[in-house]
Parts: sequence; C-alpha cells; structure tokens
Amino acid sequence: MAEKRTEEKKAVLPAKSNFSEWYNELLQIAEIMDVRYPVKGLYVWFPFGFDVRKRTYAIIRELLDKDHKEALFPLLIPETEFMKEAEHIKGFENEVYWVTHGGKNELDVKLALRPTSETAIYPMYKVWVRSHADLPIKIYQIVNTFRYETKHTRPLIRLREITSFKEAHTVHATWDEAAEQVKEATRIYQEFYRRLAIPTIVSKRPEWDKFPGADYTMAVDTLMPDGKTLQIGTAHHLGNNFAKTFDIKYEDLKGEQQYAQQTCYGISERSIAALISIHGDDKGLVFPPEVAPIQLVVIPILFGKSDEITGACRDVADRLKAEGIRVELDESDERPGAKYYRWEMKGVPLRVEIGPRDLKNNAATIVRRDSGSKETVPLDNIVEEVKKRFEDIRKSMFEKAQRQLKERIFNCNTLDDVKNKIPDGIARIPWCGGRECGLAMEEAVGAGILGIPEGESGRGNGVCPMCNKETGNMAIMAKTY
Amino acid sequence: MAEKRTEEKKAVLPAKSNFSEWYNELLQIAEIMDVRYPVKGLYVWFPFGFDVRKRTYAIIRELLDKDHKEALFPLLIPETEFMKEAEHIKGFENEVYWVTHGGKNELDVKLALRPTSETAIYPMYKVWVRSHADLPIKIYQIVNTFRYETKHTRPLIRLREITSFKEAHTVHATWDEAAEQVKEATRIYQEFYRRLAIPTIVSKRPEWDKFPGADYTMAVDTLMPDGKTLQIGTAHHLGNNFAKTFDIKYEDLKGEQQYAQQTCYGISERSIAALISIHGDDKGLVFPPEVAPIQLVVIPILFGKSDEITGACRDVADRLKAEGIRVELDESDERPGAKYYRWEMKGVPLRVEIGPRDLKNNAATIVRRDSGSKETVPLDNIVEEVKKRFEDIRKSMFEKAQRQLKERIFNCNTLDDVKNKIPDGIARIPWCGGRECGLAMEEAVGAGILGIPEGESGRGNGVCPMCNKETGNMAIMAKTY
Repeated sequence: MAEKRTEEKKAVLPAKSNFSEWYNELLQIAEIMDVRYPVKGLYVWFPFGFDVRKRTYAIIRELLDKDHKEALFPLLIPETEFMKEAEHIKGFENEVYWVTHGGKNELDVKLALRPTSETAIYPMYKVWVRSHADLPIKIYQIVNTFRYETKHTRPLIRLREITSFKEAHTVHATWDEAAEQVKEATRIYQEFYRRLAIPTIVSKRPEWDKFPGADYTMAVDTLMPDGKTLQIGTAHHLGNNFAKTFDIKYEDLKGEQQYAQQTCYGISERSIAALISIHGDDKGLVFPPEVAPIQLVVIPILFGKSDEITGACRDVADRLKAEGIRVELDESDERPGAKYYRWEMKGVPLRVEIGPRDLKNNAATIVRRDSGSKETVPLDNIVEEVKKRFEDIRKSMFEKAQRQLKERIFNCNTLDDVKNKIPDGIARIPWCGGRECGLAMEEAVGAGILGIPEGESGRGNGVCPMCNKETGNMAIMAKTY
Repeated sequence: MAEKRTEEKKAVLPAKSNFSEWYNELLQIAEIMDVRYPVKGLYVWFPFGFDVRKRTYAIIRELLDKDHKEALFPLLIPETEFMKEAEHIKGFENEVYWVTHGGKNELDVKLALRPTSETAIYPMYKVWVRSHADLPIKIYQIVNTFRYETKHTRPLIRLREITSFKEAHTVHATWDEAAEQVKEATRIYQEFYRRLAIPTIVSKRPEWDKFPGADYTMAVDTLMPDGKTLQIGTAHHLGNNFAKTFDIKYEDLKGEQQYAQQTCYGISERSIAALISIHGDDKGLVFPPEVAPIQLVVIPILFGKSDEITGACRDVADRLKAEGIRVELDESDERPGAKYYRWEMKGVPLRVEIGPRDLKNNAATIVRRDSGSKETVPLDNIVEEVKKRFEDIRKSMFEKAQRQLKERIFNCNTLDDVKNKIPDGIARIPWCGGRECGLAMEEAVGAGILGIPEGESGRGNGVCPMCNKETGNMAIMAKTY
C-alpha cells in the first residue's frame, strides 16, 4: 500500500546539499516518520521507520544488557517529587507538560509528564538502597518523555514527545566509581555508534551547559551534513546531589550511613536522525546492513518472460533467507529502473540482479547501495559473497563518515578564524577553560563551545583568544542543533 | 541486591486461598512490581518483572508479525480529534487525563493522554487510505495508555497507567472482511494464551457492554482463583462508525468512494496478571518455561566442600547454557532449603540438584516447580531430559488450568442457582438474548453477563429465566474484575 501512495504523489527528493528540505522530505517519502499528525512536534513512526528503530534499539539493549537491567517506571511524576531538586526544576520548568485534570475533576496534585526520569526513579532508589551490598545498581528504561519545545520542532531531532528515550540510572558507593561509570557509558555509546557507522566526538560540556543537577556532563556529538553538530548522547555524573534531595543512603562497611553517588546517561531517537542524515544521499536512505529492515533485494532482469531467470532469482532469495538475511524479491511488473529507484530510496544495502547474460555465466550482478559499485559474482558462492559485502559496507560507511568528519574539524587560532570556519563544521581553538573567557568566546562567535574533547584532539599548545594565557587545552566550537 | 532485601524483611507469602493478599504480596516479594510509587494506580516494573513482560510480549509480537506491522503513534491527542466520535467520548470522558499546561503557559488546545488510540490513529488512516489496493491495513503498537480510575486500583489489573497496551487497528474494504479479522484476532489471542498455559473463554459481549463506538465486541476472559473472571483481551468490529467520523474512504474497483470498515483489538498487562494468578501457588510464582526469566537452577548439594560436585554442577550449567537455556548456578553459601525457597518464589520451572550419591551414579535429581515431582536422570542425557520436561511442563500446566476452569463452570437453570454458584466461578444459564431480560438477570444476580460463548458451550436447550421463552442460547455470568 505504502509504495503505491508514494508513487502516486511522484514525490521528488531534493538534493542533499539542500539538507533541511532533503531531511524532511526523505523521512516522509522513505516512510520513516509521518509529519502530518495534527499536533506540533509530534510525529508518527511508519512501520518501516519503526523497523529501523527496533533494530537500532536492539543494539543498545544488547550492549547495555551485559551489565544493566531493564525496568520500567511511571510516566507521571507528582509535582511534590518533581519540585524537590532546585537546579533540576530550573532546568526543566519551562518545558514540562502538566496534567491537571482526570475526567472532569481537577487533580489535588498536578502530574508532570516526565521530561527525564530522575524524579520518578529516585524515590524508589531511596527504598531500594540499604547497604553497600546493594550497590552498584545499574538500571535502564526505554520510554517516551516529553518537552514543551517552543523552538522550531523537527522530527527525530527536536520533539515534544521523545518516543524513544533510553535512560540509564546507576547508583554507586563512591564518587570515583560513579566517574568510572560515566566513562563506561561514553564507551558504550561510542561502540553503539560504531555499529551504526557513525563517528563521534566525546567532550566534557562546559560548566554552564551541564545537566541541571549534575557535577559534570560528558556529551557525544556528531557532525550533520549542514555543518551543525548534533548531541546524540550524554552521560552525567550526579555526585550525591540527588541522593541528598531524595535521601538515598547506604550503610558502609563500618556501619555508617553514606549518601550514594549517582550517574545517568541517555540516548534518544536522535541516534536515528544521525543514522539517516550522515549516510543518506541524493537517492535516499543508506543503511548499514545490521539495521536495514531489508538487507538485500533480488531483481530479475527480464526481456519478456523467462521462467529460468525468475526461478534463479527465487532460488537465490530462498538461499539467502535460509541464512537469516532479510531479503525482498521484487517480481512486480515495473521496469527495473523504477525498482532501483524504490529500493535505493529505502536504503537497501545490496541489490542482486540476474539477467540472461548473468544466467548464462551462472552468475549474478551485485550492486552496493553505499558506493554504487557493481560486480559479477558466481551464483554458487552468492551467500558468502553477500556476507562479505555486508561487512565491507559497514566498514567503508564508517570510514567514509569518519573522513568527512575529520575534514570538517578546523584548527583555528583566532575567533575570526572560528567565525569563518564554523559554517562548514567544527572549529578547534585553544581555551584556558575559564567560564568568563568561554562565555565571551561563544558571544563573539555566535556559536557554542561543545567542550574539551577526550584524547588527543583536546590537547595542544596555544593561547586563549580572550585572556591570552597559554594553555594546553583545545576546545571545539560549533553551531548546534 | 534484590534477594538480600527480600530476606532481610523476612517477608512471608500469604496462602493462595487468601487470593487478594497473596497476589499483592507475591508481586512485591517475587519482584514483579513495586507498589510503593507515590501515585495511586501507578506501579514500577522491577527488572525481574520486566523480564517476564519482555518474554510475554515477544510471543504476541511473534504471532502478530506474521501479517501485521508494528508502528508508533503519539500519546497526546488534541481535544478537537478526541471529541469527534460521540459514543466514544461518552465511554471515556470520565476517565481521561488532560494536559492543560506546557511550562507556564496554558495550552490553546487541551491534550488527552490516550486511553486507547482510535482518535490518534484514524486521522492518519484518513490520509493513508486512498484506494482498495491500500487495503487491508493491519498495524499494531505496544504503548502506555492512561485511565483515570476512580475505583480501587490493583497492579497489572486496574491501573492508571497501562504500561503495556498492545492495540491493533485494521482497515478493510467490507464489513465481512472486518468480521473475519475479529475472528482472526480472537484466534491469535487464544494461541497467545495457550503459549502462556492460560485457558480462555471467548464470548460476544452483550450490546450494553460493547466498546464505545463498536458494532460489536468479542472478549477473551479467564477465571481467576477467587472465582471472578478477568477480561484479558477484546476485539471490536467498528463497522464504518469511525470511518464516517474521521472520513476514511477508499476508491473501490468501480471508482466509487466507500467508507472503510475497521476493527481494533487489544491486550494489556492483564495477560501477566493472569499468568501469575492462575499458575502461582503457596510457594510463589510458577512459570511456563517459555516466559520464565530463569528456566533452570542448578544447586550443588554439598556436605562440606567438594570440588567434584561443584565441577559437575558447573559442567551441567555450561552444557545447558550452550543450548540457549537460561540457567542460574546457585553456588552461594546458603543452605539448600533457603535456595529452594528463593528459586521456587521466582517460578523457576526446573531445579537440578547434584549431591554425592547422584555423582556416584553419574546422575542428577530434577525437580519440577509445577508438580514438585522429583526424578533421577543420567547426567549424560541431561540436555534432552531438560528439554523434554520443559515441553511436559507447559502441557501439564495448561491441562491443569483447563481442568480447574471447567470444574468451575456451573450449569444453572434458575437465577437462584446462579446466585449460589457465582461466588465459586462462572454460571452457565439459558438466555433469550434480549436486552431487557439480560439487564434484569444482571440486576437479580448482582453479576455481569459475559455474553454467549463461542462454540459448544454457548449452545443448549432451555428457558430464559426472565421471559420464560425457549432458547438455544446459553449465556455465562460471573463476578468480574
């Protein structure tokens, strides 16, 4: 049904160079999200888009399930709990949806739709945590959360209902253990994004940009095609700030009561926004095989009718399916060109064509979606050839994306430099690390400091452009979503 | 962590004969739900309970994915859409939570938290359905829904946040096709419940008890240990009632515009309430192997230290794990009795013990959770013996539950009969099918008519107790949750 509709409209995908329009149209034409739901900032996951989401979130579950447990806490948070943590309230009070009525009755206590779940989960942690032997606790949930966004909304990126918030909340005995967990979280997130062939930069957010109520925030960013960065994961060291507010204490080995140390870290459907934006091209979606709803399409190249070719295509499709590969056999009456168009739009990683000449040579033609490369392979080895290419695709998609990211990180020495480069990507510039200098830099450039990145790229030698002090710290600056 | 806590409290499970207390305590002690969340009718899924939920819903997904597609629609429904269908509003207006504020602003249009998603989904179906070739559409989602319950709430049964509502919404060209789909839905639900070893009764709800806005409602009920029935699934034929309201039309083969015919059908976490209530016993949970988070526990029976026995236990655990069986090896320092207690509480289907005598005979003792039966099996065949027992357990759990259900369906001829029998289960009585007689019967007995069941048990010969007319219809009556 869906294909038909798309074709009726003869929707044309704008070029990717026109990123914003390309993005919006692609989501609709390729049936990821329907943007026609009658409330601003709320969108519908088409079945095809939901399939991508399911496979993407299966990866994060796989990675977390090694030492986290999945649970589920309520959506509704009573105002009395929500209002306990002062910093936290300040950070969210303008964004919270409030339920005030049940049926025709006004509620005694207003209920917040969780914008994030600290205040729903930590009253339970208060009763769950008793002794050092209860620690660490590592729990996550995947839920819908809500933000009353007043800015321009955008599917998967800036939403009023975040439908796919994966939030983990851990409790530890010591501050250092919690800090280790924050590191572990960013490590897991980087692994997750590698599986999606998405390169990332991890940096410590400046003091003024941390999570409300946290000691510090580590963030995972990636670069979008339009030169703006997208925050696609965060991990917060909460210290004992929430533990004090929610009275989460444990008895230590000496029998003394101690406040617990906590972390939380989250990922949302922005992961899918990045997946689509970074890999897609003028023809539509491009998926790494692991998350592609359809991994391979088989297309018979017929001149008139040919039972032989049809038979060979079915046989290939069956053999690949038997290996667990998600195969579509397109035997429809359309011209091959129309079929190419459709399956390229859907991001199918491999296309297998069998025509008369292929069949004569007992071969098939394999076309890669990511590179467009075309090769002839023996039919007898088709399963191995396909599997090999799946691995190649993931690797070369990641390498390509990584190259593109690197090319768009510019080393700068002056704020004018930064201003010139920032429309194209990320600027790297010395920064003393001071709050005043940082805020002044942001002001001067009209862009944000993402932070000082982990590893090599956060170190260097230079002079802070504001205070002129020598520094070994390099900050990165960018326009952000 | 969790085990420890439970033991500290030395929580004691009431006898199952005291059903209501047994149920509430079991959910907490066995760590299915935490009932201490600070809002009435909202509960927390412990990781263990969530695991049961995950496996249970994997079954319904497996069954539906054969010819449905999973999608996801927004939680928030604008008042303007929600208020379009008059019958539907009447059915839900006292139960709907309303979001009236975003941040500090009052919203222009109030937003309902979906109590069910017809009014969220059908505005989209209006734009998705164009031609007969678009039909049928079969989509489902698994989401949280909300009801402002004013009655006594109860975890998994009567909730303010239904966290696990699986709702399917289909669109068809003809009324008959939709009716077929309703049949298919109840068939799928019965299969689902067979996998959970839960016997069901399918009946057509009386006119006055159908879904608001439906042509008719088929319901799937089961009998709870306290003699009340629990509705654990419904399927509604919506006719073209909603199609007219939401303007869902398709062009038929003759090029004419026709209103579509629709169905919807749902299942919630009541499925897990039934699973727990029907199979559990005085010792705690009893699970069919398919949904048990832990399928088998291996317990070394040691008198002092024995590397040989520990080694044999580890070997058995490894061999079973290699087969994909979810195994726990309990090498803790506790006495075997304490271990039995814990794993019985958690519903682990099989316990494997290896003690000195077993080892001498190259054997192991296998204890079934459902029947308590104890057998010695050769260690060499342990994998096959375990697999065989898993299948036996599911079968005999279902047979036992079916027997218990049958024993508690009572054939009655008079309303006095019904009144006497209904505290123990379900009463079967002739009913002419008329509305007036039906309502009078309900009034006289103080219990509901579930409807006329499908198949044999809905047919018979008798006289309607109200109008004294002869009838071939047999209705079932029960106290309901």
